[in-house]
Amino acid sequence: MQGLIKDLNGLLSPAQVLSQPEEMLAYANDATHYFKSRIPDAVVLPHTTDEVSKVMQYAFTKEIPVTPRGAGSGLAGGCTPVNGGIVMDLKRLNHIQEVDRNNMTARVEAGVVLKRFQDQLEPLKLFYPPDPQSASVCTIGGNVATRAGGPRGVKYGTTGNYVTGLEVVLPDGSIINPGGKFVKQSVGYDITRLMTGSEGTLGVITGVNLRLLPLPEANRTIVVVCETLEQAAEIVAEIIARGAIPGMIEFLIKLAITVMNNFFSPPLPTDGEGYLFMYFDGTESQVEYEAKVVTGICHDMKAKEVRRIDDPKAAQAYWTARANVYPLIQTIFQRATTEDITVPRNKLPDLVRTVQTIAAEEGVMIGLAGHAGDGNMHPSVLFSQVTPEILAKAEVAIDRLTRAGLELGGTISGEHGIGIHKAKYLAWELGDIQIELMKRIKQAFDPKNIMNPGKIWMEGGGDHA
Amino acid sequence: MQGLIKDLNGLLSPAQVLSQPEEMLAYANDATHYFKSRIPDAVVLPHTTDEVSKVMQYAFTKEIPVTPRGAGSGLAGGCTPVNGGIVMDLKRLNHIQEVDRNNMTARVEAGVVLKRFQDQLEPLKLFYPPDPQSASVCTIGGNVATRAGGPRGVKYGTTGNYVTGLEVVLPDGSIINPGGKFVKQSVGYDITRLMTGSEGTLGVITGVNLRLLPLPEANRTIVVVCETLEQAAEIVAEIIARGAIPGMIEFLIKLAITVMNNFFSPPLPTDGEGYLFMYFDGTESQVEYEAKVVTGICHDMKAKEVRRIDDPKAAQAYWTARANVYPLIQTIFQRATTEDITVPRNKLPDLVRTVQTIAAEEGVMIGLAGHAGDGNMHPSVLFSQVTPEILAKAEVAIDRLTRAGLELGGTISGEHGIGIHKAKYLAWELGDIQIELMKRIKQAFDPKNIMNPGKIWMEGGGDHA
Repeated sequence: MQGLIKDLNGLLSPAQVLSQPEEMLAYANDATHYFKSRIPDAVVLPHTTDEVSKVMQYAFTKEIPVTPRGAGSGLAGGCTPVNGGIVMDLKRLNHIQEVDRNNMTARVEAGVVLKRFQDQLEPLKLFYPPDPQSASVCTIGGNVATRAGGPRGVKYGTTGNYVTGLEVVLPDGSIINPGGKFVKQSVGYDITRLMTGSEGTLGVITGVNLRLLPLPEANRTIVVVCETLEQAAEIVAEIIARGAIPGMIEFLIKLAITVMNNFFSPPLPTDGEGYLFMYFDGTESQVEYEAKVVTGICHDMKAKEVRRIDDPKAAQAYWTARANVYPLIQTIFQRATTEDITVPRNKLPDLVRTVQTIAAEEGVMIGLAGHAGDGNMHPSVLFSQVTPEILAKAEVAIDRLTRAGLELGGTISGEHGIGIHKAKYLAWELGDIQIELMKRIKQAFDPKNIMNPGKIWMEGGGDHA
Repeated sequence: MQGLIKDLNGLLSPAQVLSQPEEMLAYANDATHYFKSRIPDAVVLPHTTDEVSKVMQYAFTKEIPVTPRGAGSGLAGGCTPVNGGIVMDLKRLNHIQEVDRNNMTARVEAGVVLKRFQDQLEPLKLFYPPDPQSASVCTIGGNVATRAGGPRGVKYGTTGNYVTGLEVVLPDGSIINPGGKFVKQSVGYDITRLMTGSEGTLGVITGVNLRLLPLPEANRTIVVVCETLEQAAEIVAEIIARGAIPGMIEFLIKLAITVMNNFFSPPLPTDGEGYLFMYFDGTESQVEYEAKVVTGICHDMKAKEVRRIDDPKAAQAYWTARANVYPLIQTIFQRATTEDITVPRNKLPDLVRTVQTIAAEEGVMIGLAGHAGDGNMHPSVLFSQVTPEILAKAEVAIDRLTRAGLELGGTISGEHGIGIHKAKYLAWELGDIQIELMKRIKQAFDPKNIMNPGKIWMEGGGDHA
């Protein structure tokens, strides 16, 4: 592959091409570090869309696989170069090109880090809701590629709801700009939405047009301690059924609270099993009203404690802790794998019961947290040790969980994507006809199969039913 | 084509197959009755998805064009059988299969009339926002196929924002169910969204999963009379820039008010040029607050009159009149054609000025109404007579309008779709690479090109630049 490096050095400056194994090691994996991929043959760091296009033209001619990559914070192995070739690291495409205050829109390059963008909006009283918990590192291009969500999804929807246009480099290097700066369009097939969630398999997303909202003026945080997990789930179902939709409703278990408790003063009691973190935003009168309605529901349903945090600064501690649950948990366990099952919102209590049953029957520890308000839970198998025996049990448990989610009318992924992690389950949800259709769509965009090959579906088929 | 009718009678009951020219005449056109299409070779009225599948299997084998049709209330000629063949009238697939109050979702067959569905939700305190002004006749399947919008788009988005899943019969008769009853999903390519707005060219939409909202408890209507069209447009731009987003902001001209005035008591003054109809919904305190902010903006900007209608019943008269503007205008003129230009929201004043300039320079009458809050305007060329000379002038004017909308960073269609009406402008907006990509997507779904052929792009290419 010496020719490859030489060729890439001809297209870009040498500093933009990594070729030493030690430089490229980190590109073999994403945040699901336990999924083994391989070290790429080269990593490129383009600074501009034209440079992306040049690399794609080259790869297209030579038929070399290209895997686009944002921050590598994904949880499905989507940006790992399973077939080798070139990893295209897009973090240098990091310009916030426009924030149009009057039009309430923005245009960013794909490598812009989400939190940096959100921080820039706040003083302008603008709001971009999507909030994957990796906001401090993840890129907006990566969010688009995975259709990323986060706690605010329950009220505000996920990334796809805010993308109005894209700049995309197609596999042959040509550049298209589907959608635009307007907020509605009905002009042929929705290529913007088709790219959103395509996990780097159709083209390279280089620019993103986003719709913004006015920043809500007020917020309230309420934390609820519940006797049992079922009680927490029933409270969520009741809140949704009554039409009170908080800005966030996060579901956590006692284990999570024990690792989060040093963030809070006073700490939360640990004699509950299920915990809800809720957030209301809007006008002052609106949040006051909604917080009152929801507090009433929690008391009616006999929650152990309903803690209302009115001071926004104090409230922030709870949300910072929430954002850090996954890394905190990982410091205790040798491994924590994360699923992304999403069920119809009122099926949450059933899902919670099923997770407990499966954990008990298979003899594995399954942590449970998630965006309860939109039925999106992240059950995590927690490994105190990684042994072949525990791995085998975990696999059975995850298979069962996935089946159970589908039987409840749910989906195998709400916001993480499929990558390699969930490819074995794809046929369970979609069936052969839809997968066949997706392969034909892929072929329409990428006739040489160079864009992130080996993702979403199992190459060569293979139903694991 | 006698064989065709006989074959279809074998697949369906004879009452479900129309074959007499007088029965089929109405299927040659949609609401853009001035676009000449042709009478189909047969019309079928399936009652079930299985019947749709049977007809598609037959048409696939025989390579006969099939044009799916809802109410025929479209404004782009999308459901007209330009190449003949079978029109598939889906109005008999009219079951509201489920309204899940607790989950805030619904499942309907494609032929359900929008208003009937909305009427059923109201007593349950549920809300489905999309509101094309043809709600009393148009079908939800048709709304999905065109990505339909309406006045509520400014706050609530369009049909695509509410569709979480579909049932689709593919050209070969196979049935898929992309998406589902859950509110978020990241499982491969978003086929649900790709079908949404595909105008019957990829498959037949037979079932739709919808996400619902809680019904807002309160509303306010405010009508604003402005000296000039520009003043009205500037007020809209200021409202958006200040982050106050009403539930609707409709823009109307004096001509519209004169035909609407018998709906109101007292009638609106006709000494203004531009009129805004605004609607606020939410909690009581929220609408009161928003109405006050917006009223303040209107007074600051020296509107001639700001009329606040607090009684919801009285307010309804204004909205009924608004919904009837297009048919009312058509009773005065021999013809009224409607465009669907959508620009970035703060470009509305520029668009309004441009429309007036073009009308004056080309010597045609152009009415102007639209969903101002999302930059979506419907300039209509109004023909007191239809003569070759006026038609030629109108064509030049519409070409110029379309170019102007694109130059302002806009799109040729916000919510009507392309159909045949706007196919000549497609390349102006998308360019050849995107159109080529769309053709390849079409090929992936419909290898024999039997699904509503001749729509969206000009067959055989043809840039009219």
